[in-house]
Amino acid sequence: MARASCGRDYHCCPDINTAVETACKSGFDFVCLPIVNPRYKREFIHGPAKNRPGPLSRSDLVLSGQDWSTLIVGKTSPWLQLDSRVEVIRKNSEAGFKQELAFASHLGLPAILIQLKHGKNANLARCLSEQIQAAYFQQQYWIQIPLISARDQADCLMEGGQTDEEREPQDDTWKWWHEFRTLCDSQRRINVVLELSTNLPDEEVLDRWLAEPIKCVMVSTNLFLTNKRGYPVLSKPHQSFLKKLFKLDIQIILTGADRHPDKGLHTYQQYLDHLWQTRSPPDPITQFAKGYEDYLQSPLQPLMDNLESQTYEIFEKDPVKYSQYQKAVYYALLGKIKPEEKETKSVVLMVVGAGRGPLVRASIAASHQADRKIKKVYAVEKNPNAVVTLENMKDEMWGDLVEVVSCDMRLWEAPEKADILVSELLGSFGDNELSPECLDGAQRFLKDDGISIPCEYTSYMSPLQSEKLYNEVRVCKDNTPSNKPLDHNFETPYVVRLHNCQVLAPPQEVFHFKHPNRDTVIDNTRYTCLEFDIKQDAVLHGFAGYFDTILYDNVTLSIHPDTHSPGMFSWFPILFPIKTPIYVKKNDRVVLHIWRSCNAKNVWYEWTIVEPTVLPIHNPKGRSYTIGL
Amino acid sequence: MARASCGRDYHCCPDINTAVETACKSGFDFVCLPIVNPRYKREFIHGPAKNRPGPLSRSDLVLSGQDWSTLIVGKTSPWLQLDSRVEVIRKNSEAGFKQELAFASHLGLPAILIQLKHGKNANLARCLSEQIQAAYFQQQYWIQIPLISARDQADCLMEGGQTDEEREPQDDTWKWWHEFRTLCDSQRRINVVLELSTNLPDEEVLDRWLAEPIKCVMVSTNLFLTNKRGYPVLSKPHQSFLKKLFKLDIQIILTGADRHPDKGLHTYQQYLDHLWQTRSPPDPITQFAKGYEDYLQSPLQPLMDNLESQTYEIFEKDPVKYSQYQKAVYYALLGKIKPEEKETKSVVLMVVGAGRGPLVRASIAASHQADRKIKKVYAVEKNPNAVVTLENMKDEMWGDLVEVVSCDMRLWEAPEKADILVSELLGSFGDNELSPECLDGAQRFLKDDGISIPCEYTSYMSPLQSEKLYNEVRVCKDNTPSNKPLDHNFETPYVVRLHNCQVLAPPQEVFHFKHPNRDTVIDNTRYTCLEFDIKQDAVLHGFAGYFDTILYDNVTLSIHPDTHSPGMFSWFPILFPIKTPIYVKKNDRVVLHIWRSCNAKNVWYEWTIVEPTVLPIHNPKGRSYTIGL
Repeated sequence: MARASCGRDYHCCPDINTAVETACKSGFDFVCLPIVNPRYKREFIHGPAKNRPGPLSRSDLVLSGQDWSTLIVGKTSPWLQLDSRVEVIRKNSEAGFKQELAFASHLGLPAILIQLKHGKNANLARCLSEQIQAAYFQQQYWIQIPLISARDQADCLMEGGQTDEEREPQDDTWKWWHEFRTLCDSQRRINVVLELSTNLPDEEVLDRWLAEPIKCVMVSTNLFLTNKRGYPVLSKPHQSFLKKLFKLDIQIILTGADRHPDKGLHTYQQYLDHLWQTRSPPDPITQFAKGYEDYLQSPLQPLMDNLESQTYEIFEKDPVKYSQYQKAVYYALLGKIKPEEKETKSVVLMVVGAGRGPLVRASIAASHQADRKIKKVYAVEKNPNAVVTLENMKDEMWGDLVEVVSCDMRLWEAPEKADILVSELLGSFGDNELSPECLDGAQRFLKDDGISIPCEYTSYMSPLQSEKLYNEVRVCKDNTPSNKPLDHNFETPYVVRLHNCQVLAPPQEVFHFKHPNRDTVIDNTRYTCLEFDIKQDAVLHGFAGYFDTILYDNVTLSIHPDTHSPGMFSWFPILFPIKTPIYVKKNDRVVLHIWRSCNAKNVWYEWTIVEPTVLPIHNPKGRSYTIGL
Repeated sequence: MARASCGRDYHCCPDINTAVETACKSGFDFVCLPIVNPRYKREFIHGPAKNRPGPLSRSDLVLSGQDWSTLIVGKTSPWLQLDSRVEVIRKNSEAGFKQELAFASHLGLPAILIQLKHGKNANLARCLSEQIQAAYFQQQYWIQIPLISARDQADCLMEGGQTDEEREPQDDTWKWWHEFRTLCDSQRRINVVLELSTNLPDEEVLDRWLAEPIKCVMVSTNLFLTNKRGYPVLSKPHQSFLKKLFKLDIQIILTGADRHPDKGLHTYQQYLDHLWQTRSPPDPITQFAKGYEDYLQSPLQPLMDNLESQTYEIFEKDPVKYSQYQKAVYYALLGKIKPEEKETKSVVLMVVGAGRGPLVRASIAASHQADRKIKKVYAVEKNPNAVVTLENMKDEMWGDLVEVVSCDMRLWEAPEKADILVSELLGSFGDNELSPECLDGAQRFLKDDGISIPCEYTSYMSPLQSEKLYNEVRVCKDNTPSNKPLDHNFETPYVVRLHNCQVLAPPQEVFHFKHPNRDTVIDNTRYTCLEFDIKQDAVLHGFAGYFDTILYDNVTLSIHPDTHSPGMFSWFPILFPIKTPIYVKKNDRVVLHIWRSCNAKNVWYEWTIVEPTVLPIHNPKGRSYTIGL
């Protein structure tokens, strides 16, 4: 978004047209209004107002249909207490809630704002679920939740307005949300409006919210300070948290009375937009990944499918990957040929899986850079479409130095053995595009003292919270063959740019592979059990997977968060989902088991957790997902 | 079963034919043998035996195919350690396990016995799941688990062989089973063989096993005492636990050396069969329910569907229900007509939902018994097929006393008002066959001082553990309309004879209804929140529902476990399942929310739990199940 989308919240609204006009003039994009004017409040079950005549609320004719459906967010009445223990209040509230939601649908409002005031909302959740089941119209429900509960806010003030880092919240409002959305079966139409508080909770608590589907942040005018020039501004901590939230492309709602009437309401909007404009610019990876956030992709199966021209083109643009490959070949050449041999000795280099030639180019460049001779570059490629490109490049640039081999490396009968074997077969999880199996096959034409680039790689995993990704997996449908289980989409890993999520513990090493592999019997099955310590209450939705690799010596590539190669965008992380969201408590231990299994035709992963809760093994015998050899 | 099914376990077996012959002669029905003779043991991964020539095991020709598939249970080798931390042992074990299971399939063995020796079995679970995914042949897997772990058994002995009521088990073997079966996704082909121990754990621990799918109990010869006549017998506690297990129709395996060689092995078998024969005979309800144990039935929808003749016939046979109704009418007549009025006064009685007439009969009998006059019995019935029976009975027996009304009670225009309104519209959960709605409609032709029989009813619920029922719900498929959610079978209550299950806390009151209902506005929606305290670690699979009713004064009917009307079989309990099995810990609180919702056409329940874990609301807006008005 070029500018912040800001809404103005009205507690009450004597005249809608004036309210909308004022807000728009002050630069706001939408307004939040009570669906039903408080003066129309009535009793449904008992009481004097029960049979009061007259309309439910103001007429729908005060605004055009277009305006209702684009400018107005409807708020349910503050008197509604759907979870009251007093039956008459509860039933009255149910009837009122139902009527307000029906009227909001009638008006075509795009979103309804519903406030949670405490943690007990089972009946509200039921009534809202009922509405969602019934509604044809795809209205959004915005659940307004304070960042800190009124009770904790009061405690905080009593302690002199200081947040105590050690103090646990009495009434964790994230838990209100977690219970509420779970009761509503994590419906995608239910999202969060987070109310900013005067004091901010701990960093960890704030970060947890970043893994939730936040649509808006609500900022009260009384959070604003006045700067030297008399304009409203926010404190540094508020600014910094807002800028974090902005990464989720949220909207802002300004609530409360204008406390800078001399400057005008528009100065609030301008300040918020200013914050939006000055948020830190995206890094290259973020820019590249724009539009792919939390979008699930099936991992590539390059052995079974041929890549498309466009796919090659995207990956060839990586500014880091091929320069690292060139560096690795450079050092490998220096290792193979001493300075005094540089005129007399030359090496045979093979690129297995040459694609459209980037590694051939990098290798030749490395040879020039190192001032070492390559006798022959074999460019082995199984995709006949990519071979067309390679043959063209040979004709136009490379000449006799390069021999293009249109063949599957596993079947190729090499005319001589290689000193250096270069490949780029790694997936987001390292071995998941079957680099181990391919290189084990190719090493038969590698000399005994030959070098494999890459020579090592390791996969890593972290427990992950993300309602967004859970929902993406849940709705992810393909043409399910009847032999797969109903929830097979939870038994598949996905390549995904992780965005609206939170990592619950640092990554740990999973599987490790080395090349060439000189074991007498090569066994690429693996089995690892990992234990992660959880630092705060959270929900486990799955595991994020990463890899790093040593290309040669100290030349590496990494998508491990702590060591990510700067600017490299070729790989997004991989996601291993779990079938049931698991509530994990502070100090819980998450124990993950993961297997890499192989048979003659396929490789696949199986995984599960046994603590804090045991789940069924995911993908037994590769029933839902395999990688074809 | 007329007699106990007993198997004989052999630790090793030099000659199969002799073993089978000996066991059969001693009265045993099957034998348990190692799948692979220990002398054939080999190393798969490393070691000298790796390439040893010769066969895997004895030839399959030693027995006929018929014998292999009916007489032999195969045991996997005791040296297999699929969860060893030593990689070579683990991989060796995996290969051995796979080979043994393949050979057992080749032989067509009906069941494989696999022993759990500790709680860490993730890799064993994976390998077994793989086998189950692959197998075409429906082999059973019997997981052998000690009632008390070796470690706890040792602790026990150190304390002088006394079980300490207060002592917690160090290593709860039920948890081994729970983790294992969950990892295997609660496959129905995986069942328990429970190893009886010298000392028995607490009653609660034993009862929990009764909620698990137990196929066999394994009894060692060294548990036997010797009676005065020198024969092997079991202690009282062992006898009593075995008799409890017998209710699950299990088999018995005798293991260990013959310690009464003078009497012969057959005396063990005879003793076990004696216990089987002398188990307490089934009560009338158990007898009636034979074959219906844990069998899920959709609750009747008598308002929408007409009952079949056979259904009427079964329910009319209840030995208790109609005699209680007769008693209720008897007291109601005495209440309505004082002794001095008995010649002059008479009452109008209406049976609404008369079916094939049992309540008409009971009312007339009550009138004779009480020596009070009924002026007219109106028998109102909407099912035209049942009206045929009623008309016949009127012609043959009742004459003018009874007027048959072929009409839906909700539509009938009664010619006069009733003193007594008799109905039998209650379901297993009281109101679930819409008795409230029907009687609210019918009370318009009840006099102001009229009596409704029944006059009150209450429903109850208890948290329930039952893997069997969880699996029954899971596989329960109907012709799912596309508008229902995938797991709609978990959003439906079922009428079921509860058998292989455990109630985790005493029942609590849910909903209550009274008739006639004199409220100005009648509201039959209900909402209740119940809290249950859990006494030991268990798995929550759903809730059992019951009801009781006051017909009149102190004449009642009940299927509440504590007050069940003796011998009454008309109602099995109702089951409200939950979508995800929830592990509940000792001292956990289970918090259930349940709603009875109504609209103009339907009534339905919604339910969920919010503690110890929150689940989505089940059946929102009746999307999976409603009861039609």
